Parts: sequence; structure tokens; C-alpha cells
Amino acid sequence: MIYAAILGYGTVGSGVYKVINKNNAIVSKNAGDTLKVKYVLDLREFEGDPVMEVLTHDYNDILNDEEVSIVVETMGGLRPAYQFTKAALEAGKNVCTSNKELVAEHGHELMEIAKAHGVNYMFEASCGGGIPIIRPLMTSLTGDEIEEISGILNGTTNYILTAMAENGSDFDTALKNAQKLGYAELHPEADIEGMDPCRKIAILSSIAYGKAVDYHDIHCEGITKVTADDMKYAAALEAKVKLIASSVKTKSGYAVMVAPYMIIENSPLYSVSGVFNAVYVRGNMLGDSMFYGSGAGSLPTASAVVGDVVDCAKNAGRNIMKIWDEEKIELVPFEKIHSRYIVRVPEKDTKKARELFGDVTTITLTDLEEECAFITDELTEGMFAEKAEQLPDMISYMRVKF
Amino acid sequence: MIYAAILGYGTVGSGVYKVINKNNAIVSKNAGDTLKVKYVLDLREFEGDPVMEVLTHDYNDILNDEEVSIVVETMGGLRPAYQFTKAALEAGKNVCTSNKELVAEHGHELMEIAKAHGVNYMFEASCGGGIPIIRPLMTSLTGDEIEEISGILNGTTNYILTAMAENGSDFDTALKNAQKLGYAELHPEADIEGMDPCRKIAILSSIAYGKAVDYHDIHCEGITKVTADDMKYAAALEAKVKLIASSVKTKSGYAVMVAPYMIIENSPLYSVSGVFNAVYVRGNMLGDSMFYGSGAGSLPTASAVVGDVVDCAKNAGRNIMKIWDEEKIELVPFEKIHSRYIVRVPEKDTKKARELFGDVTTITLTDLEEECAFITDELTEGMFAEKAEQLPDMISYMRVKF
Repeated sequence: MIYAAILGYGTVGSGVYKVINKNNAIVSKNAGDTLKVKYVLDLREFEGDPVMEVLTHDYNDILNDEEVSIVVETMGGLRPAYQFTKAALEAGKNVCTSNKELVAEHGHELMEIAKAHGVNYMFEASCGGGIPIIRPLMTSLTGDEIEEISGILNGTTNYILTAMAENGSDFDTALKNAQKLGYAELHPEADIEGMDPCRKIAILSSIAYGKAVDYHDIHCEGITKVTADDMKYAAALEAKVKLIASSVKTKSGYAVMVAPYMIIENSPLYSVSGVFNAVYVRGNMLGDSMFYGSGAGSLPTASAVVGDVVDCAKNAGRNIMKIWDEEKIELVPFEKIHSRYIVRVPEKDTKKARELFGDVTTITLTDLEEECAFITDELTEGMFAEKAEQLPDMISYMRVKF
Repeated sequence: MIYAAILGYGTVGSGVYKVINKNNAIVSKNAGDTLKVKYVLDLREFEGDPVMEVLTHDYNDILNDEEVSIVVETMGGLRPAYQFTKAALEAGKNVCTSNKELVAEHGHELMEIAKAHGVNYMFEASCGGGIPIIRPLMTSLTGDEIEEISGILNGTTNYILTAMAENGSDFDTALKNAQKLGYAELHPEADIEGMDPCRKIAILSSIAYGKAVDYHDIHCEGITKVTADDMKYAAALEAKVKLIASSVKTKSGYAVMVAPYMIIENSPLYSVSGVFNAVYVRGNMLGDSMFYGSGAGSLPTASAVVGDVVDCAKNAGRNIMKIWDEEKIELVPFEKIHSRYIVRVPEKDTKKARELFGDVTTITLTDLEEECAFITDELTEGMFAEKAEQLPDMISYMRVKF
């Protein structure tokens, strides 16, 4: 018998409980022995829910029970998740988590602690929900130098952008609707401001490149400034607007950024709609690859957590995680990252725009008569900012991958 | 030092040699020790190629060298690949292969032999080229009951179908062109008749369901009957024609089949074009997921083989492959598999078609005036065949996923 404990009976934690119980025969067969949830830790009561049989309010029940070899941390946030995780690892228990905040902040340290105690700290569910991406990066793409990882790593924002494109609605309306339908949280800042995908691309980059990428060092823009009019240009250009977290090897370091982009059909991420997520990976030998699936949701995320639980069970007493170096990787300074942009200016500024950006082709939409848009050549963020300053009436801009 | 030997210096074998040498620092770091190719076995000479330094014509050089712990079998075909693989495993050497023919035919036996000798028989490159799919199925999707695997598993046929759709060319022209460009072999039967994806879906199904799926038992159709006119209907319906190998859990067993299908934009496989491959997987908890990448080609396939080599090195002395049961899984008999079809009949048969298939909506194309097409409701293959017999002048039919 393999005993697990779940910390936090929220969306993901209750999903993990359900997956382990509902698929117990398969899970146990894959784990090599019967897997049982012995405890669920939560401060709340859940009257009428069978989880009451295993519910505890005291973490020490779990920590002091030597039978529990796997702890599932699905509390989210840094405290007390960090303390609980550390204590579990130091007690020689494996920890599996969906907590990207904790992994992005303390992943290296917690993996080192796990290694020192002959156990594993696993976090497949922290990036891309149910999509297997951490394990493929660690165990499959080991013959390649990874040259790029770009992903749609947040379901909430992709849902909102998809809705805006399909319904013509503005950002606020689309957000409110997403909240009503449960696709956005009441406090959606981490999603809509891009912090959530920012943490995820930091984790994926650290694994892929083998050195630490601190998410605090990454330039990060959300989708709050994307307007219904921007979407009209996207439609006219047969493009889609996606919040893309990208991490690209360049000659002068790694260019890592989170921002909304217009992309066209040649991008594998083009057709990733609604709450789905996808991670594009380019290896120097493999070439293009992509991993696609449910980026959030109780059961898909729980499926990834349970995959980790099974892996911990199969590798009892054996640390198998590829730990990145503590040393930080060299990031290209934001001002030196190269991009192309779509820029919207009032009609009167067309001449000025041509002076600044060269002989650009302008795009005019019939229902936005008093303005025009154009797509720039590739230039650095620094140079773009300089030119943009000279167009104080610029309506909006967005990066493009055309 | 970890010593490997490569059997066969063809497309994939030479790719493996290149990946291990070119990415040696990364590969060795991931493997935990320096990885070196000590032998390449091939009957030919390669004057001027640095491989001459390690070339041998005698397999016994490899078999009797105790330093060689990993054998890469990239010869293809059953003989002598089977004998060589068996001998290597029995000598306590790991074997990594891209040989889908051998895995489909003797995979179970070879995995059992590997297990008995404390080594591994790995074959990530046998399905979907560079796409990581075997390992995710074995180690990531372990919390799920897999309900469906459907894939575009052959680059040659997908290239031909994409070219037919884009250029309006007929099958023979597209095939000849693909041969000229190196995307189709001189003897392309295994690809165009569907045997290659048939073997691959058998392997993937065996892993996913944990019981043997014999590719001889799978109904398999290729793309040789797809015409330029069929493509016109696809275009009119905004559909694409894809050779799909599918494996679906139903109430009465597993429905496994290889055949060309018309699919529409709601399918994740819709935008997989040219030589790319993709595998769609549905789990009962995970929901939809997809794995996309280069399905063939020297370096992408080699990248997958090298991923296996690294995994063998990391797991020296430890069998980690999930072996499916020898017992065969219950397949739905072909006549009882359910599908929908697009059927083309001469104009004169429209009334008869309505009598047989119900009040179907007909589609007429301006440049194919003397015929019409319609899409049937879902019915079994057996029932469809019965009705089709009563339309002896039927022009063509194809299964659809609409």
C-alpha cells in the first residue's frame, strides 16, 4: 500500500482526490501497488462529502505519519505551502504540486532539499495544467539543445482573447463574462496582468536551459490594454491575438518575455483557442514540436498531479528530477529584445510614421476611418520606444509574429 | 564513460551519430557521464566520413565488447534486426530503436527479454518520429484511463494529401513529386497503403491500454484511392483529408482503424500539414491533449532515439518500461465500427441514395455537375457496405469526422 496525503481540498486538491479514487485500479497498477489517500488537510469542513473520512485540520497528523510517503500540495500561494513542503521533504516524503508560485519562487531550493533526502519534488501540473511538458523536457528532449519555448500558458486570458475575437466584445465585458462562467477568478490580476504565464515560462526555461531564470527579471505585459478595435485589425489580417510567454535563445543570451502578440496561421499556436494551452518547443535537432491540452480545470490539472504521484511511487527512494543550476542564465536586457510591431496612429500622423519607421504599408479599416495601422520591420524594444515617443498620439501598438 | 553502438548507418543511424557528437556536452550532462559512440555497424564503407574511425562490419565486435552498454538499432526491417536485438538484450545491453516494424511484431517479447536481463528496450522513435509520445504515455498519463488515441502518424502520406489539397494535383502526380523531393520512398507501399501508421497505432494502443493490439487485426486503408475530385469536396466543406490512425474505447471494445478521413476545424489534427505528425490523446480525467512535431526525418527521429539512449544511461541496471500484457485486447469487429461517410454518386442515383440513407442534404459543385455528394448519419461499416452495394455506380466514399 502507498499512502498519500493532500494539502488543500480546493479545485485541484479535490480533483486529485477524485482521480485517485475513480481511477484507482489504473493508478495503482501504474504505481506498482495500491495507492490510497490517507489524509486530506483543509481548515474547512465538508459535511456530506466522503472526504470527511480522511479530513484533518492538523498538518502534524500527516508529517508524523511514517506511512505517508507522498504529499500532494495543492494549497497554492507561498505560505504556508513553502513551510509545509519543506517539512515534508525533510521528513523524507515526496511532494507533488500544482503550485507554480512556489515552484517559481523556491523550486531550486526545494528540489535540492528533496535530493538531499532521497525523495522527489515534482511539479508537472505547475505549467500548462494537464499538458505533459515538464517530464518531456526532463526525460525526452535530452538529446537536444532547446532553442525556443513559446507558449499559451494561461487559460483565463486565452478564453478572454478568444471571446473578444469571436464576439467583438471589449476587454471588460469579456472579463466579466469569463468570471460569470468560472473561467476567470474574482481577483484575476495574476492572470490578466500576465504574472501567471510569467512564472510558468520562468520554470520551463530553467528546466530547458539548466540554469535559473528568475521570473522577476522577465518583462511581462498582460492583456488589459487589448481593445475591440485591435481585434478588428487582427481579423482583417487573418491574425489572432494571443498572450504568449516566449523564451528564445539568441546570440546575446536568452530573450524571455510575456506579452500579447498577433500571430498568423503559420504559428502552431494559432489554432489554440478558449481555455486550451499549448507549449511550442524547438530543439536544435528535433526541430518544431508542440504540446497541447487543457491548461487548467480541476480534473486535467489533477491528472498531471497524479502522474507525478505515480512517478514518485515508482521511484521510491530515488531522486530523478533534473535540477537546474542556481546560477542565473544570461537574459537579453528588455530594451535589446527584437520584435516587429503593429502600430495604430491617427490619420494625421501617417507621414510622421513613415519618417520614423520607413516606407511602411498602411492598413485602413472601413469602420475605423480616422486612423491607420502599419507593421514595422524588426527593431529593438529600445528603438521602438524612442520612435513611439515621437508619436504621442499613437492609439495602440502590439507585437506581431508575421 | 558510456559506450554506445549504432546498427545501421542509414537515415536515422547517421542522424543518431550526428546528434550524439554535435550535442555531446548536453547529451553527456543529461546522461550523467560522457557518452561516446564506439561502433557503427554497416556493411558499406563510407570513405571520407569520420564514421570510418568507428565503423565495423562484424556485429560480434559489438556484442562481445563488454564496455558497450547501449545498442542503437536503426537498421529497420525484421531480419537481422530481431536477432541482433535479442542477442544484445541477452548480453545485458540496452537497445534503443526507431524500428516500428520490429516493435509492432516482437515488442512484447523483446521487452520481456530486456526485463529478464535488467536492461531496457526503448522505442520512442518508432511512433511519430521526434514527437515524445511513448514516454508521456508510459510515465505522464498514468493517472488516466485512455479513451482515445488518434493520430496523423505518417509524414509521407500527410505530405501527399497536403500537396493534393494545395495544388489540386491527383494522387499519382503528388506521389511522384514527393518521391522527387525525398518525402516518399521509391517503394512507398508501406506508407501509402497505411501499413506504417497501422503498426504505429498498434504500438500506441498496446501501451495505452496495457494489452496487446496486433496490427494484423486492424482494418487498414491507405490513400491511393483519394482523388483530386474528393479534394474539391473537402475544400467546399472547409474540410481537410487526413490519413488517420484511430483507436477509440467503446462500450463493446476498442475500435481501431486506419483510413483517410475528412475532418473539420474542430479537430486538433486539422491544422497538421505537410510532413508533420500529431497524436491526439483523450484521457478520462485529462480530457483532450495533443502532441505535435516532425514525424520523420533524420535528425528529429534521431533526437527521439538519443532521448532513449540518455534514459537507458540514467537507468542503468534498472528496467523501467511498462510492458503490455501478452493477452490481446478486445477489438470491435470491423463491420461493427461506427462511422459517418461522405458519398459521391452520379446525379441519376440521388433518389436511390435518399431511399437508402434517409433525407440527406446533397452537395453539388459547379465543376462536377453530373454528380452529387452527401454526408450520411452514423452507421456501422457493415450497414454501410450493404447500402453501398445497392449503389453500384457510387463514385467514391470517405469517412468523415464532422
